[in-house]
Amino acid sequence: MDKLAIEKNAINKLLWKYVNGIMLWRLIMAIINNDFHDVLTGRHSVRRFDPSVKISHEEMTEMLKETITAPSACNLQAWKFVVVDTDEGREKLHKYFMKFNFPQIDKSSAIVLFFGNTLAFKKYSKLWHSMYEAKKVTKEAMDAALNTFMPLYEKAPREMLVADSMVDTSLAAMQFMLIAREHGYDTNAMAGYDSTKAATTMGLDPKQYVPVMAIAIGKHDPKAEAEIATTRYPISDLVDFE
Amino acid sequence: MDKLAIEKNAINKLLWKYVNGIMLWRLIMAIINNDFHDVLTGRHSVRRFDPSVKISHEEMTEMLKETITAPSACNLQAWKFVVVDTDEGREKLHKYFMKFNFPQIDKSSAIVLFFGNTLAFKKYSKLWHSMYEAKKVTKEAMDAALNTFMPLYEKAPREMLVADSMVDTSLAAMQFMLIAREHGYDTNAMAGYDSTKAATTMGLDPKQYVPVMAIAIGKHDPKAEAEIATTRYPISDLVDFE
Repeated sequence: MDKLAIEKNAINKLLWKYVNGIMLWRLIMAIINNDFHDVLTGRHSVRRFDPSVKISHEEMTEMLKETITAPSACNLQAWKFVVVDTDEGREKLHKYFMKFNFPQIDKSSAIVLFFGNTLAFKKYSKLWHSMYEAKKVTKEAMDAALNTFMPLYEKAPREMLVADSMVDTSLAAMQFMLIAREHGYDTNAMAGYDSTKAATTMGLDPKQYVPVMAIAIGKHDPKAEAEIATTRYPISDLVDFE
Repeated sequence: MDKLAIEKNAINKLLWKYVNGIMLWRLIMAIINNDFHDVLTGRHSVRRFDPSVKISHEEMTEMLKETITAPSACNLQAWKFVVVDTDEGREKLHKYFMKFNFPQIDKSSAIVLFFGNTLAFKKYSKLWHSMYEAKKVTKEAMDAALNTFMPLYEKAPREMLVADSMVDTSLAAMQFMLIAREHGYDTNAMAGYDSTKAATTMGLDPKQYVPVMAIAIGKHDPKAEAEIATTRYPISDLVDFE
C-alpha cells in the first residue's frame, strides 16, 4: 500500500469514528427524554406491555440510583427494592397478586416491588458517622441528629415506623415513575395484592419489610388498544389558602 | 414631524417590541427549569429561606395543578392541600410543629400542608360517571370499576383508608417538590409536628383528613450558610433481582 492509500485509510477510519459518534449521540438523545414538563404531564398508567422489551440490570440499577435521590424523613431512606424479571420471579407474584394485575406481571419488562424498611433507623448512626468522616457535617450536627432523632425511632411504636417507611418509599416510587419516562418507559403502579403475603413470598422478613406498591415497567404494546386517560378533580376543590 | 422621522419612530417602536420580547423570553427561560435531570438530581432540602420571596396564589395553584397529575390507587386522588402564607396561618403552625421547624415556617414563601383524604372514595362514583359522560371510558369499564373497587373501600377498615391516602398524598408531594424546582424554588419536607393536632388546628375534620407531610417552599437565602448535602446508602445494598 502506498503512502497516499495509508493516509486515505486513516482519514476514512477517523471519519467513521466521527459518524459513529454522532449516531451514538443521536441514539442516546432519542432514548433519553430530558424535557421535565413532558416527563411529568405525559405520564399515565400503561397496562398493556410489549413483552419483547427487555431492561438490562445495568439500566435498572441506574434508574434506581436516581430514584434514591428522593428525600426521606430524617434521611432514614427507609426503602428496599425487589426487581422481578424472571419467569420464576413472576410466578411468585402470581401467588399473592389479584388476577387483574396478571397481564402487567406477565408482559412488562420488569416489576419493581417497593418495600418500606421499618428498621432503617438501625443503620442511621453509621450513616451520620460516614457523613461526618466525609466532612459533610460537623460533629455538633451529627451529635444533634443522633441525640434528637435516634431515641424517637428507638422508642417508636411499630405503626409509626410503618407509616414513616410508607411515606419515604412512596416518594421514591414517584421519582422512579418519572425516571422511567426519562428512559422512554411506561409504568403501572399496582396495589392490588395480598399485602400480608408480600414479604414472605419474596423471601423477606415481614417484621422488617412492608409492601408499599409494585410498579410494572416496560413499553406500551403498539398492537394493543389505547390506555384509559383518567380524569382529575378540579384543583379548586382541593386547595385552601390560609 | 416629517415623513422620515415618523418612519424612524415606527421602526424604533418595532425594535423595542422585539427587544422586550427577547428579554421577556430570556426571563421566562431563566425562571423555568425544564431540564429533567437537573430538576431531579439538583433537589436537596433547603431550610434557610429568603423571607422577601413571595409566590402568588396563581403560581401556587398552577404548581398544584401539575402536582395532581400524580397517580393514585384506583384514581381515588385521596389528597388535600392547605397553603399557608399569612402571618395568621404561620401562627397556627407554631401551635403544633416542633421548634426546629420554626425558621422554615417563618421565612419560607409558603408552607403547603399535605393531608390524606380518607373519605375520597365517597366521590369516586361521581368521578367515574363524569369520565363515562366525557366518553373517556365505556359503560362496562365504569361498571367494573365501581362494582369491584367501591365495595372494597366501603367495607375497608380505617387503617387501610389512612394508609392508602398516605401513599397517594406522598406521590403528589414528591411531584410538588420537583415542580417547585422547575419553577426555580427550593423545598423542605417536614414531618416534625404533633400529627394529632394538625387537622383540627387547620379547621379540618380529623376523622376525614390525616397529615402526611408539610413542605416549606421558597428560595435559599443567599446570605445564609450553605445547606447540608446528605449521603445515600449504596444502591447495591438496597436492590435484589428475582
